[in-house]
Amino acid sequence: MDVLAEANRLAAEGKPVLSLAVGQPGAQAPEAVRRAAANAAITARLGYTDALGRLETRQAISDHYRDQYGIAVPASRIAVTTGSSAGFSLAFLALSEPGGRVAIASPGYPAYRNIIKALSLEAVELPMKDGDFDLDALLAAHAEKPIDVLLLASPANPTGAVIQRDALGGIVEACRDAGIAFISDEIYHRLRYTGDDVTALAFGDDAVVINSFSKYYCMTGWRIGWMVLPEALVRPVERLAQSLYICAPDLSQIAAARAFACTDDYEAIKQGYEANRKLLLERLPKMGIGFAAQPDGAFYAWCDVSRHTNDSMDFARRMLAEIHVAATPGADFDLFEGERHMRFSYAGPTEAIAEALDRIEAWL
Amino acid sequence: MDVLAEANRLAAEGKPVLSLAVGQPGAQAPEAVRRAAANAAITARLGYTDALGRLETRQAISDHYRDQYGIAVPASRIAVTTGSSAGFSLAFLALSEPGGRVAIASPGYPAYRNIIKALSLEAVELPMKDGDFDLDALLAAHAEKPIDVLLLASPANPTGAVIQRDALGGIVEACRDAGIAFISDEIYHRLRYTGDDVTALAFGDDAVVINSFSKYYCMTGWRIGWMVLPEALVRPVERLAQSLYICAPDLSQIAAARAFACTDDYEAIKQGYEANRKLLLERLPKMGIGFAAQPDGAFYAWCDVSRHTNDSMDFARRMLAEIHVAATPGADFDLFEGERHMRFSYAGPTEAIAEALDRIEAWL
Repeated sequence: MDVLAEANRLAAEGKPVLSLAVGQPGAQAPEAVRRAAANAAITARLGYTDALGRLETRQAISDHYRDQYGIAVPASRIAVTTGSSAGFSLAFLALSEPGGRVAIASPGYPAYRNIIKALSLEAVELPMKDGDFDLDALLAAHAEKPIDVLLLASPANPTGAVIQRDALGGIVEACRDAGIAFISDEIYHRLRYTGDDVTALAFGDDAVVINSFSKYYCMTGWRIGWMVLPEALVRPVERLAQSLYICAPDLSQIAAARAFACTDDYEAIKQGYEANRKLLLERLPKMGIGFAAQPDGAFYAWCDVSRHTNDSMDFARRMLAEIHVAATPGADFDLFEGERHMRFSYAGPTEAIAEALDRIEAWL
Repeated sequence: MDVLAEANRLAAEGKPVLSLAVGQPGAQAPEAVRRAAANAAITARLGYTDALGRLETRQAISDHYRDQYGIAVPASRIAVTTGSSAGFSLAFLALSEPGGRVAIASPGYPAYRNIIKALSLEAVELPMKDGDFDLDALLAAHAEKPIDVLLLASPANPTGAVIQRDALGGIVEACRDAGIAFISDEIYHRLRYTGDDVTALAFGDDAVVINSFSKYYCMTGWRIGWMVLPEALVRPVERLAQSLYICAPDLSQIAAARAFACTDDYEAIKQGYEANRKLLLERLPKMGIGFAAQPDGAFYAWCDVSRHTNDSMDFARRMLAEIHVAATPGADFDLFEGERHMRFSYAGPTEAIAEALDRIEAWL
């Protein structure tokens, strides 16, 4: 946040700031989605919806699982949420008691840790091993003191790393055997560059899946996402959602139901990310910046900058001040090794990425 | 929820259901608000906003305090929230530690209790005394085991009761003296029928005020509200909001900023509530249904039905089944005396209220 604030301040001064720091698509939602919202704003009867969402939106999400994954998920097991943010809180509260232990991977999305703490739960941060999730470390921690929940993202923020099909199946099965609830954060699905997405639902219907219209669907500011729930969790999540959120924003629910029909628009946007990713993969290693994990998905690369610094916050500050390129220092993502990592986001326009790389190369 | 579900089922069967059960205005947001959203859906650059909201929306709310109350509140102390629901969670988390004690009045909005429990806090429910908040009971409970936070609503749900100016000033001062943080739920402000609203901010800037565009402003489904924060809480709430919500829905933020200019529309809607309230005040006492608190504000009456039943849930079920009038049984609002109370909402059209009263009279 401090880097973003400083970048905004410099941009307001007229400095030619380029950002590799943002966690959201540069593109807006497609025309059809925006028109659906505009029409609904004028003509729809808006109000509190059911806590789990409008039926049409839940049904559209159900259809998406059939079309995209070939998996049958009834609309009754889908909860429309106020972004994935609400999904995380609801899942943690439904799956654990106060003081419960929630395991997450490190590096990871910093809000995981903050939400877990805010809800009086304990975050158990498990360092990645050679860029992969360390299942042995999970089971060792569980043996020491029981873990209630494991939350993993694939593709992940900040690494872009993907958990391969067999590994994901093995994690789901190990959690089931150990009595650990599994939450699969799939908000970067459809943004994979090296193969097909695998949902945790492919290995049974006992996982909680959290997804969102923010990333692939370019609807960050709309605050709209969803959960797929095991049957037994539907009613507990409904009751929690009714008290904590009442419902997700109604206009966003209506608009989001149209997003699945806009695949051509979205694939065109994704082609931009692919071009950007190619640039990073080609050029960063030549500058002595390596990838600490395979950047196979999302729009992030988790970069090892230890050849240039042992203080990534200082590196980020100097890069912004001296060449006006913003990127995110690693500390918030990784309590263990954040000082030697930076997250580079490639969700922006390709020209901006290319120009940023030119500046970094000259600067280094 | 069960009564609402049954009412919806009967209505879907074609039964002439009339509802005194809803907690939201029958009217939609004014044309100008809806047009602002429609235009923004097409033309605005939507995305994550600052965690505390768009500056234009915070400034519009700041202006509202000047215009409506004659009180200066800088935009920097205003947080735009995802409805008052987010405001409650953020206030509780910012003002207390795990296990902290939050005092609320009984009867009260059921979500208070549920949110408090979900966040691993303890709800201390204080029964009203002769329709008023019982300050002595608060101080007695605090002496027994310290209370961290007091949350009160005026006008209140489900009673419509208003805390008079002197009483509110006394409560604020007593809390300050005792070291209890005070949260003032003002979401039914501008829906008072017997005098002017008093904000807790009139007695100092140490209260947390929670408000919303849902009720007077007819924007329930938009999920947009606000908090006014003491200076020292701005940064803690910003950090919590960033992790738990990221930001309030962007379209709703843009549209809500226009709502303050639509007073004529809103006052016309309020005139309908006034007519409805007059009908209830005239007719219910003649049916042996009394008011357990003065219904001076909001659009609710908290009715004593003990002449007719000692089981308000059964009373509600029979009323719905036999004359197709839905109203809310008291149990969720009041753990102590809910069995002999019902909440009648008068937010609907006047003809529907009149017809419902005719049916109830004939039925009793």
